[in-house]
Amino acid sequence: MAESGVKQPLLLPGSLDSTSKTNQNFDFKRRRFRRCKSAPLAEYVPVEVNGKDVSPPESGSIFNNLHPSIRRISIYLVLYLAIGSICFYLVRHQIKGEKTNGVLDSTYFCIVTMTTVGYGDLVPSSAATKLLACAFVFSGMALVGLTLSKGADYLVEKQEELLVRALNLRKKAGPTDILKEIETHKVMYKCLTVFIFLLVLIAAGTIFLATVEKLDIVDAFYCVCSTITTLGYGDKSFSTTAGRIFAIFWILISTLCLAQFFLYVAELNTEKRQKELVNWVLTRRMTNVDLEAADLDDDGIVSAAEFIIYKLKEMGKISQEDISLLLEEFEFLDVDQSGTLSPSDLLLAQSSSTAR
Amino acid sequence: MAESGVKQPLLLPGSLDSTSKTNQNFDFKRRRFRRCKSAPLAEYVPVEVNGKDVSPPESGSIFNNLHPSIRRISIYLVLYLAIGSICFYLVRHQIKGEKTNGVLDSTYFCIVTMTTVGYGDLVPSSAATKLLACAFVFSGMALVGLTLSKGADYLVEKQEELLVRALNLRKKAGPTDILKEIETHKVMYKCLTVFIFLLVLIAAGTIFLATVEKLDIVDAFYCVCSTITTLGYGDKSFSTTAGRIFAIFWILISTLCLAQFFLYVAELNTEKRQKELVNWVLTRRMTNVDLEAADLDDDGIVSAAEFIIYKLKEMGKISQEDISLLLEEFEFLDVDQSGTLSPSDLLLAQSSSTAR
Repeated sequence: MAESGVKQPLLLPGSLDSTSKTNQNFDFKRRRFRRCKSAPLAEYVPVEVNGKDVSPPESGSIFNNLHPSIRRISIYLVLYLAIGSICFYLVRHQIKGEKTNGVLDSTYFCIVTMTTVGYGDLVPSSAATKLLACAFVFSGMALVGLTLSKGADYLVEKQEELLVRALNLRKKAGPTDILKEIETHKVMYKCLTVFIFLLVLIAAGTIFLATVEKLDIVDAFYCVCSTITTLGYGDKSFSTTAGRIFAIFWILISTLCLAQFFLYVAELNTEKRQKELVNWVLTRRMTNVDLEAADLDDDGIVSAAEFIIYKLKEMGKISQEDISLLLEEFEFLDVDQSGTLSPSDLLLAQSSSTAR
Repeated sequence: MAESGVKQPLLLPGSLDSTSKTNQNFDFKRRRFRRCKSAPLAEYVPVEVNGKDVSPPESGSIFNNLHPSIRRISIYLVLYLAIGSICFYLVRHQIKGEKTNGVLDSTYFCIVTMTTVGYGDLVPSSAATKLLACAFVFSGMALVGLTLSKGADYLVEKQEELLVRALNLRKKAGPTDILKEIETHKVMYKCLTVFIFLLVLIAAGTIFLATVEKLDIVDAFYCVCSTITTLGYGDKSFSTTAGRIFAIFWILISTLCLAQFFLYVAELNTEKRQKELVNWVLTRRMTNVDLEAADLDDDGIVSAAEFIIYKLKEMGKISQEDISLLLEEFEFLDVDQSGTLSPSDLLLAQSSSTAR
C-alpha cells in the first residue's frame, strides 16, 4: 500500500528531521495551533489583542456602527410600527375603548397587539379592523421571533462585557482575563445580564404605574407581571397620555427581555447537559474495541485526527452523515487513490476538471 | 520519529496486504461503515430494519408506552393544572367576571393564565389573588417552554411518519424509502405536520365558536386568532359552560401548536443556511494553503480524518476549543509519544494509572 511511500513532506520538510523529542514535540504543538487558526471558521470570534481593550469605538454615527442584523431588524421594526400605526390610525373610529390621542393610541394598540399583550382596553369593533388586527398579530409574532433569535442576543453580548468588567473591577483582573472569563461562562453571564436588566425594567414599570397611573403598589406590580408575560388581562393598563408614551417603549423592551431570559435559561440547561456528556466522553476509558472503531482508514493505528473524530461523534457534535459526506468528497479529491491528499492530487484534480 | 516504525497493524493485519487496488478500496469503504456504526452516538436514531415496519407497538398501556420526557411533562402539566385549579377555586370569590361553574371556571382561568392568553373575562380582584396569578403565569410560561422544547417535538415526529406515509401512499414506496425521505426533509415535514394540525385546530375553533357560542363567523375567526397567538383582547371569549370545557383543551393545544410552528420555521431557516454553508465548503476548491492548514500532525500529507476535521471546522460544526480539548486528551493517552494510539498505549496508560 502507498502508506509509507507517498508520505513526502508537504511544505515544511525541516520540521520532521529534528532529533530532540521535547523540541520536536513543542514544535508540533506550536505549529498545530498556528495552522488551526489559519482555517476559516464560521462561528469563531477572536477578541484577544494582547491585553488591549478591543471593544469597538462607541463614537461616530450610531446607526452605521450597528451590526448588520441589528440594523435590518431595526428597519423591520420601524416599518412594522409605522405601517401598523398608520393603518390603525385610519380605522381609529372602528376601535372602541379608552382613548387619549389618535396617533399615540394607534401606536400603543400596535405595540400591545404585536407583543401579544392584548389588554383589551382598546378593541377593534368592525369586521375589517378585526381581520387587520389578526394580520398584525401574526406578523408581529414572527418579528418578535426574529428579534429574539438575531438582534437581542447580539445586544446582550455587548452588555455582558460591561457586566463582567464591573464584577471583576475589584479583583484587578486584566482585560484578557475578563475576556477569558466571559468565554468560559458565556451563557451564564448572558442569563445574569438579562436578569439584572429585567429587574430594572420591573422596578421602573412598577414605580411608573404607581406614580403616573396612580395605581396601588400591588396593582402596579400585578400590571407589570401581567404585561411582561404578555398575559394582559386588561383590568389594569396604561390609560393616560404619559402612560401610553412610556408603555410603547417599555412593553416592547420588557416582553422581549423576559422571553430572551427564558431562552437563555433553556440554553444554559442544554449547555450543562452537553458539558456533562463531554465530560463523560473524556473520562471514559478507551478500550481496544474503541481503537478499532476509531481507526477510520484501517491502517491499524489511531492518529490524532481519527481520535478527535471518534470522540466528537461520541459527544454527538457530529453525525455519521457529516462524516460520510466528507469522506466521499475526500475520495473524489484523492485522485491518485493513495489514501492521503497531497499537492499532486490537487494538480491532478485541476487538470481533470479543466479537461471535462 | 516514530512515524513509520510503530505502525503495526492493530487487529486486522490481513486487510492491508491486498494488492488489488479496487478490492482494497472496496474493503476500506465497507469496513469503515461497519466500524463507524459501532461508535456510540448521542443523537443517532437507527430506524431501518431491512424493509420492516419498525414503528413501536401502539397497544398496551398508553401511559407506559410514552417517551420518558413526555411522561414527565404530562405529570408536571397535570400537577400544575390540579394545584392551579384548587388554588383559584379556593379564592373564587376574589375573582370577578362572567362565571359559570366554580371548578370549571378555576380550571379555565388557570389555562388562560398559563398560556398567557389572558382574556380578562375573569380577573382577580384582591391583592392576594393578583399575586397568585403572577406566580402562576411565570411558572406557566416555564412549563410551556419545557413542553415546546421536549414533549411537542417528540409527538410531532410521531405524526410526521403518518403524514409522509399518507403522502407516499400512491407512489407505492417501501417503508425504508419513506424513512429515508423523512430523514432527508425532517424539519420540512415537521413544519408541514404542525401546519396541517394548526389549520384543523383553527377550523375546529371557528366552527365551535360560531355554533356553540353563537358568534358571527368573522368574530369567531377573530377570537380564534386572538387566542392561538395568546393576544386575548377579551372582547370575545368562551362564556358558556360547554364553551369553557372545550376551551380548556383547545386553548392549551392550539397555543402550543402555533408556538411550535414558529419554532420549526426558525429551525427550517437555520437548516437552510447551514446547508448552504456546507455546500459552499464542499464546492470550494482546495488549495495548497488549505492542505498545510489541514495537516494536523504536521507529517506533510493530509489523511482522510484530517480532511474531515478541517472541513467540519470550516462548516462551523466544531470549534477550535473542541479540537484543542481532544488533542490534549489524545496526548495524555499517547503514553509512548509516538503520535498515534495503539493497544500498547492503552496498556501503558492502565499500568501507570494503577501505579498512581
